[in-house]
Amino acid sequence: MENWLLKRARLTPNKIGLVFENNNWTFSELKMCANTLLNQLYHHKQSLSRVAVLGSNAADFYHLLLALHLGNIETIILNNRLTAQEIKQQTTIAQPDLIIFEEKFTEKLTLSTTDYDSLSLESLKQINSDTALSFSETTIDLSQTTTIMFTSGTTGTPKAVRQTYENHWSSAIGSALNLGLSQDDTWLMTVPLFHISGYSMLIKGLIYGQTVCLIAKFNPDTIINTLTTYHVTHLSLVPTMLEVLLNNPSFRRLGSQLKCLLLGGAALSIDTLEHCIRLNLPVIQSFGMTETASQVVALNHHDARKKIGSSGLPQLAISLKIADTVEPYSTGEILIKGPNVTPGYLNSPLELTEDGYFKTGDLGYLDNEGFLFVSGRQKELIISGGENIYPLEVEYQLKQLPMIKEAAVIGEQDTYWGERVVAYLVVTDIDDFNTDALSLLSKKIAAYKCPKTYYLVKELPKNAIGKLIKRELPNQEIIRLIQPTR
Amino acid sequence: MENWLLKRARLTPNKIGLVFENNNWTFSELKMCANTLLNQLYHHKQSLSRVAVLGSNAADFYHLLLALHLGNIETIILNNRLTAQEIKQQTTIAQPDLIIFEEKFTEKLTLSTTDYDSLSLESLKQINSDTALSFSETTIDLSQTTTIMFTSGTTGTPKAVRQTYENHWSSAIGSALNLGLSQDDTWLMTVPLFHISGYSMLIKGLIYGQTVCLIAKFNPDTIINTLTTYHVTHLSLVPTMLEVLLNNPSFRRLGSQLKCLLLGGAALSIDTLEHCIRLNLPVIQSFGMTETASQVVALNHHDARKKIGSSGLPQLAISLKIADTVEPYSTGEILIKGPNVTPGYLNSPLELTEDGYFKTGDLGYLDNEGFLFVSGRQKELIISGGENIYPLEVEYQLKQLPMIKEAAVIGEQDTYWGERVVAYLVVTDIDDFNTDALSLLSKKIAAYKCPKTYYLVKELPKNAIGKLIKRELPNQEIIRLIQPTR
Repeated sequence: MENWLLKRARLTPNKIGLVFENNNWTFSELKMCANTLLNQLYHHKQSLSRVAVLGSNAADFYHLLLALHLGNIETIILNNRLTAQEIKQQTTIAQPDLIIFEEKFTEKLTLSTTDYDSLSLESLKQINSDTALSFSETTIDLSQTTTIMFTSGTTGTPKAVRQTYENHWSSAIGSALNLGLSQDDTWLMTVPLFHISGYSMLIKGLIYGQTVCLIAKFNPDTIINTLTTYHVTHLSLVPTMLEVLLNNPSFRRLGSQLKCLLLGGAALSIDTLEHCIRLNLPVIQSFGMTETASQVVALNHHDARKKIGSSGLPQLAISLKIADTVEPYSTGEILIKGPNVTPGYLNSPLELTEDGYFKTGDLGYLDNEGFLFVSGRQKELIISGGENIYPLEVEYQLKQLPMIKEAAVIGEQDTYWGERVVAYLVVTDIDDFNTDALSLLSKKIAAYKCPKTYYLVKELPKNAIGKLIKRELPNQEIIRLIQPTR
Repeated sequence: MENWLLKRARLTPNKIGLVFENNNWTFSELKMCANTLLNQLYHHKQSLSRVAVLGSNAADFYHLLLALHLGNIETIILNNRLTAQEIKQQTTIAQPDLIIFEEKFTEKLTLSTTDYDSLSLESLKQINSDTALSFSETTIDLSQTTTIMFTSGTTGTPKAVRQTYENHWSSAIGSALNLGLSQDDTWLMTVPLFHISGYSMLIKGLIYGQTVCLIAKFNPDTIINTLTTYHVTHLSLVPTMLEVLLNNPSFRRLGSQLKCLLLGGAALSIDTLEHCIRLNLPVIQSFGMTETASQVVALNHHDARKKIGSSGLPQLAISLKIADTVEPYSTGEILIKGPNVTPGYLNSPLELTEDGYFKTGDLGYLDNEGFLFVSGRQKELIISGGENIYPLEVEYQLKQLPMIKEAAVIGEQDTYWGERVVAYLVVTDIDDFNTDALSLLSKKIAAYKCPKTYYLVKELPKNAIGKLIKRELPNQEIIRLIQPTR
């Protein structure tokens, strides 16, 4: 296949491809920016097969990612919220030929720059590249790795996920078949470019020929301004962002303009979902991961009300099943097969079933119509007195109770039961919190699933895209502890 | 990948998949119809790897095609306008295990049924299939051949084109990326199901999850009724059909409802195109063939006015170039590479360039923005006195002249010049036709390109989808002959 940036610049050269802080670039201009940067890069170092990048949601970084796509260079996209120690760990795994970083992140590379050649993006842009070097990679091999991202690491050691051109292509196609597609659509990107949810939008921009409005940092006013100025039709959000936006009257009036509000990263509360339905906001809940190059299962707007709590149906090219069962409503590990699935990690083998399905490590079930309901991470499964307890189920029920804004349920070691269920709660008012409300829980779920201890905390620990990091829960400061009476 | 019919029936079971003569079938019902037919088929014959079918635009035939898709059986789709002799020639090439035909076509099989097992569709439907046989092919191998179609044969011996699942998949995806996509779109199919333009719509119906309104026979009133009753958004037409519809006031008012009027098979006259633009009808001109599983190049509505005469830009996954040149405006054979291209014919090798491009046998050029302009079939190129003459160019200019409705230009043997240019014309009024008009031609194109003889005929010979069959021109009855003065 021809290189996507080159092809797009040929198909729709004058269409706006990127908007950032009142500037915009046509696809033809994006090609030129990428071409210049790539030329400067080869002036710095002629042989490059794998480059690590550390940047933020900004036009220069977007151009850099396009330049590396244009040069067919494997790109390790580092998370800019990591510590110097974590970045050293990841570069040691991925072994880049060069690290390119925005200068504001210099500190984060102090442990890595001794081992690897590195260059700031600002310096790269200063390189004199009047003599154009030859680097005409005009075609791409779909089976080749183009990006490497580390799993967000909510469960421990990060794994270096290889993403091929085919993974990204299939993801874009599957999403188009699911959500529909029009070249007049415009996406607003407020999720990080270094995360698959952001990078996949850059790729979709090229494949679909759509405008991407890149936002440096989530801020309701900027979002509202951009939505109206650029007639944005699609945006990706994590639930916390959506909740903030719903407080804004201008946002609530945008229902008719928006075609898709894609949600990922965490489950949406039933209140928020119903609020969106009332406002006619086209919420799409989804399920996907770095290993599947973005979402592979999605619940569209039309099914949202009748399938509350579901992540939806698999994309057309995706096969989805639950391990060791063909029965509906039977919970087990979610298994996925299809062209979106990574060929493997750099540093550990991919866990596949005998018939080639990727073992996601997530638990869930399919209902009688094949809709997926995610029950949580397999590693987060709590086994107490021989009973399986799915934290998501307990969290879901807790969030239905009055005054509870957020809930996270984990197991603690217990000499008698093996594990005991405990919950971390963020409530609307800690002092006024009425513990009686908690007793309502036992009417909803079996007693063995009910938390034995509640920890009231100020906030839950989350990663860059707002995903809960359960392993950090025990480090949270406890403001109030509640032991419910039996 | 999972079988598309099964997957679609699982994703959107209650959506209408097919409408035909006031009946309709949901995808779930289509699956059941296909399942029953396939079961009946296996009761007739247990081992089937390749079946030939001869049918018409009707629900039963649609169900049969779906049944063969469900059973993963290679399907030779025969053209129902062929003679018994031609059908014998094609079955001899393709060697089916069984021929299934609609009874009204029995006569056409008189020469083939002695050599092959055959069964009418009507008898197939009577088979008792209470005992369900096992035929659960739930997955498809993309590289496998699923359909075999013979090229329309405008140039001689038919070739048996193999079309893989991947060819059809890539065609559907490429078209969606080009035209946009929404699950609420509804297609009206008036082109034949046995032709790639019709069959590709059946496939798109499954892949996109859209409703197909099947029409037995082109008739303006039926078309208008269906367009309004079923809120049709897309239709495929050949230019002659469009010209008939444009005479209908109700059709002319449908501009705002329609999203896509896909034209193929022949070039659209400039008058008709401008008429459509005035009516705001979203005309999409395209270029494609049986070997590329439908269109691979398309000119969208937005570019229609500024690129008159062009077939448009290649789909994203398609590489397009002109043989032996990289210069714009330089004419040569059109070369195509991409996942839509057939792996080969059954009865002859596929002509490929050294770098793997399919040699289409069509001539054309690319303009400075990469838009394709088709000049005609390579075999139709006229060489007169050492000069190359492209019939399409001459035909295009002829059609701009007053009173000329249709024009076809070919070469006749000439002992002195090698070939001499002649034209067959259909005019608005043969008796009143003013030959002076023809002298205007020499102001537009070089004298060596101007026809030396004009044959006025009642109509031009055309195939099932309205494509001109040049080799039959010399058999037309000549009503008037004009030798222009030099």
